[in-house]
Amino acid sequence: MRVAIQGERGAYSEAAALEHFGADTAVLPCATFDAAFAAVEAGEVDAGLVPIENSLAGSIHRCYDLLLQHSLAIIGEHHLRVRHCLIAHPGVALPEIRKVISHPQALAQCERYLRGLAGVTTEVVYDTAGSVKIVRDQGDRALAGIASRRAAEVYAMEVVAEGIEDDPANFTRFLAIAKQPLIPNGDSKTSIVFAMRNAPGALFKAMSVFALRDIDLTKIESRPLVGKVWEYLFYVDFAGSTVDPVVTRALQNLGEFTSLLRVLGSYPRHRPQA
Amino acid sequence: MRVAIQGERGAYSEAAALEHFGADTAVLPCATFDAAFAAVEAGEVDAGLVPIENSLAGSIHRCYDLLLQHSLAIIGEHHLRVRHCLIAHPGVALPEIRKVISHPQALAQCERYLRGLAGVTTEVVYDTAGSVKIVRDQGDRALAGIASRRAAEVYAMEVVAEGIEDDPANFTRFLAIAKQPLIPNGDSKTSIVFAMRNAPGALFKAMSVFALRDIDLTKIESRPLVGKVWEYLFYVDFAGSTVDPVVTRALQNLGEFTSLLRVLGSYPRHRPQA
Repeated sequence: MRVAIQGERGAYSEAAALEHFGADTAVLPCATFDAAFAAVEAGEVDAGLVPIENSLAGSIHRCYDLLLQHSLAIIGEHHLRVRHCLIAHPGVALPEIRKVISHPQALAQCERYLRGLAGVTTEVVYDTAGSVKIVRDQGDRALAGIASRRAAEVYAMEVVAEGIEDDPANFTRFLAIAKQPLIPNGDSKTSIVFAMRNAPGALFKAMSVFALRDIDLTKIESRPLVGKVWEYLFYVDFAGSTVDPVVTRALQNLGEFTSLLRVLGSYPRHRPQA
Repeated sequence: MRVAIQGERGAYSEAAALEHFGADTAVLPCATFDAAFAAVEAGEVDAGLVPIENSLAGSIHRCYDLLLQHSLAIIGEHHLRVRHCLIAHPGVALPEIRKVISHPQALAQCERYLRGLAGVTTEVVYDTAGSVKIVRDQGDRALAGIASRRAAEVYAMEVVAEGIEDDPANFTRFLAIAKQPLIPNGDSKTSIVFAMRNAPGALFKAMSVFALRDIDLTKIESRPLVGKVWEYLFYVDFAGSTVDPVVTRALQNLGEFTSLLRVLGSYPRHRPQA
């Protein structure tokens, strides 16, 4: 299985890809989300795995935009527990570390931990795995990065401290995307995007097509669209698959009053472990 | 009027504060969102102005969390059009620039523009306004930052190019917060947060308390809560004010089946210009 991700080797996306598709997955690192989607569409890989939302930082609108621009299908989801590690050269002990580098979001998520390290300064770099690569390349034993445990393995560095994030409820939900849609069995979910002009009760009508058929919503998010014909995009996930006739009828019903409706895919549900 | 913001002088938050409260506002820059909220609560300032969502990047959950932790009221909203500027030393022309520094999100939002500048490298720094401060302090005429026009004024640097963001639909919505709630007249909005256990139709029930009273929702977002008693937090904004008896009854009705319900405030609606 070949899988495209955004980010360097050792990124959280790589860790998620290995958990989701198996340890023998061949991961293709791409510099941008655009490049990862393009690699899937061009058939260079069998699938892509992209982050869609983080429990602390929210939805990643860029990936929703790319799902709308491409004709790819969601074939799976994966919840990754984000456990930040402090990573330095092998044998380095915590008191030796003078400077910590990482992506600004990772530094912010470890703020309380970092404040507890006396005399340590921080500096931002482009991404988490990249910070460990810099630590390796600079050969400086007083320098540490913040990234996934996977990044330490990839760059032959060592984890000095694990789980250093201030809030342990830190999960990223990834979507697996491919050219061919899946027809899932059993416990499944479906993701859709739709647009409606904002009118009092419009969203209520949209909700009722699901509620009247006892379909359980697992995500709903409105996104205002500045300067567009419609005023709002809605991202909705619900329990069930498009092969279920009740779901098909609900989507037909929804289509009666939306200006855009795209089914992004049905896929097996992945339940995160807290 | 004294107003706390998160970020350095020249940050987009400062630009928004001056637009919202007037050009003679005394702005107090705070290193973190926590510090900005604490300054309002301690009475060091009359109000705070914090970003709550960006049209490209989504909701800023951290500010919702702080609204729940503090007993402050939302007293206003402000939509700021994010126009990124390339900023260098006075008199520098575009072809002289060899390196561009800024916050990773600003660099990403100007990716296409930056690709068009031959032989220019990029480097991440902690924030947008901070990049202009670095340009000034280093005295390097081949170095440019990406930030608001306001940052060029604050650090006596010059705008080389304006509106360099790839997507012009780039707005940030800010909330004004204060110790005392407001009773707005005329066209107003109310922001609430509530929590419910996820059960089929639960969200539909919540929506119906508004729909049955013809109350127009302007934002809805579900946020899964990992490892909490309830499964979901919902962020909802709607048209109207809590002094309206219809709104009061809708909120009473909503409280019948939510495990948490907080009215964050009612405030005059600000309509963005596209």
